[in-house]
Amino acid sequence: MQASDTRTAVAEHPGLARYAALAAALRQRVVRGEWLPGTALPAEQALAAEHGVALGTMRRALELLVEQGLIERIHGKGTFVRSGIAGASMLRFFRFGDGGAGQAPDSRILARGVLAAPADAARALGLAPGESALRLQRLRLIDGEPCLLEHIWLPLDLFGALAPQEEGETPATGADAPSGWPALLYPFYAARCGVHVQRAVDEIGFGVLTAPQARSLGLAAGHPCAVVTRRAMDLAGRCVEWRVTRGDAHAFHYSVTLI
Amino acid sequence: MQASDTRTAVAEHPGLARYAALAAALRQRVVRGEWLPGTALPAEQALAAEHGVALGTMRRALELLVEQGLIERIHGKGTFVRSGIAGASMLRFFRFGDGGAGQAPDSRILARGVLAAPADAARALGLAPGESALRLQRLRLIDGEPCLLEHIWLPLDLFGALAPQEEGETPATGADAPSGWPALLYPFYAARCGVHVQRAVDEIGFGVLTAPQARSLGLAAGHPCAVVTRRAMDLAGRCVEWRVTRGDAHAFHYSVTLI
Repeated sequence: MQASDTRTAVAEHPGLARYAALAAALRQRVVRGEWLPGTALPAEQALAAEHGVALGTMRRALELLVEQGLIERIHGKGTFVRSGIAGASMLRFFRFGDGGAGQAPDSRILARGVLAAPADAARALGLAPGESALRLQRLRLIDGEPCLLEHIWLPLDLFGALAPQEEGETPATGADAPSGWPALLYPFYAARCGVHVQRAVDEIGFGVLTAPQARSLGLAAGHPCAVVTRRAMDLAGRCVEWRVTRGDAHAFHYSVTLI
Repeated sequence: MQASDTRTAVAEHPGLARYAALAAALRQRVVRGEWLPGTALPAEQALAAEHGVALGTMRRALELLVEQGLIERIHGKGTFVRSGIAGASMLRFFRFGDGGAGQAPDSRILARGVLAAPADAARALGLAPGESALRLQRLRLIDGEPCLLEHIWLPLDLFGALAPQEEGETPATGADAPSGWPALLYPFYAARCGVHVQRAVDEIGFGVLTAPQARSLGLAAGHPCAVVTRRAMDLAGRCVEWRVTRGDAHAFHYSVTLI
């Protein structure tokens, strides 16, 4: 029955190349939980037979899913559903301190609340204008020095388990406090909410710090900052997190190779 | 004789994986001009036989060269030496005007001269401290508006043909003027100097404009700017161009996908 569902999905996309429609159908099988993150897919031949396609078509579909980051090939072991990105990567855009690149940053959640999402966040998360979402304000620190300030917006239908008991914005204290949350949020999202972040798009821009932002970072109001706006996507490609990260513009550094 | 040279090169790298040493040997054949940019490589089987390696080893070596950007596979046609990057890509880091992404920028060379290379440029280009190099100051314009200011350093052993007749820095006027040079420099380097830029690494940071830089860009001294520092490499992996590009930080925008 699973296979016939999938074949229907392939037939439903007449405008799409056959292998692309097949890739979409395979992705649906992952989204429906048939193959969990970390587990192996069946052999290519078996998959091709099940979907009634040539082996070459199945291989192209699998290649596309590798490119999209949904699955990965491990040499000599097989093809696996990826467990998602770890998410500790915002620091790749910055150089703080005396170049201790291997340092793990600390994480401190400054505030957590259910608030009306601003227009940008609502658009990214597919919410109606003014709809409520969970907002986290988080500070990342290296050697005790504040370096990055994050504003994280999460849709309540997926992340209700992380919302505070009381309404409105609350400091991150009390019995329900997120002070015990780990620094790596994406594995935490998976464990607590069953949300697997598989892909993220970071948009880098430049701005200046407002007075409250500057206070959190120990800088002067109006200080130049790099602004990284992230959309993080789950297995199905839905944007499940919208995050704005700010850090000292003078610490920003990023390398791009062009071939 | 070519093939035996190459086999020697493979044997000379005992610490390297066999396919990586093979890739280095194949790269040498390109560098020596045996296969010119734009031309096809022999069939994999023939190459494997010539180098006395298994077909699988040759395939891994070729894959590595594809990743490194030296060669490309064109489906159904074969494997080709890449003609290099076009180089008009600095604008991918910025958004100027009302979003006309397809606009081709104009190019104006403000000055050209043979000058002592600063420490950064000398280090990147492999020159002795204080050694002379060719410097171009170039302005990129969109709709007549200055948007990017570039300082380009080129080693004289490769780019002597582009140097001015007189000593020192000269305005870009007169009989020998570069006013007729095309906006795309990399194809021009190939045509005039036989230098093929195959790969570039761009390092992005933020800074502020000096008074002369600001004047060229029509901005105020001290205005925040994005600074893109590029090292461009030829077929052999030698850094053949060091370039610093500055533009209004508020126009900076770059997107990175993480999977």
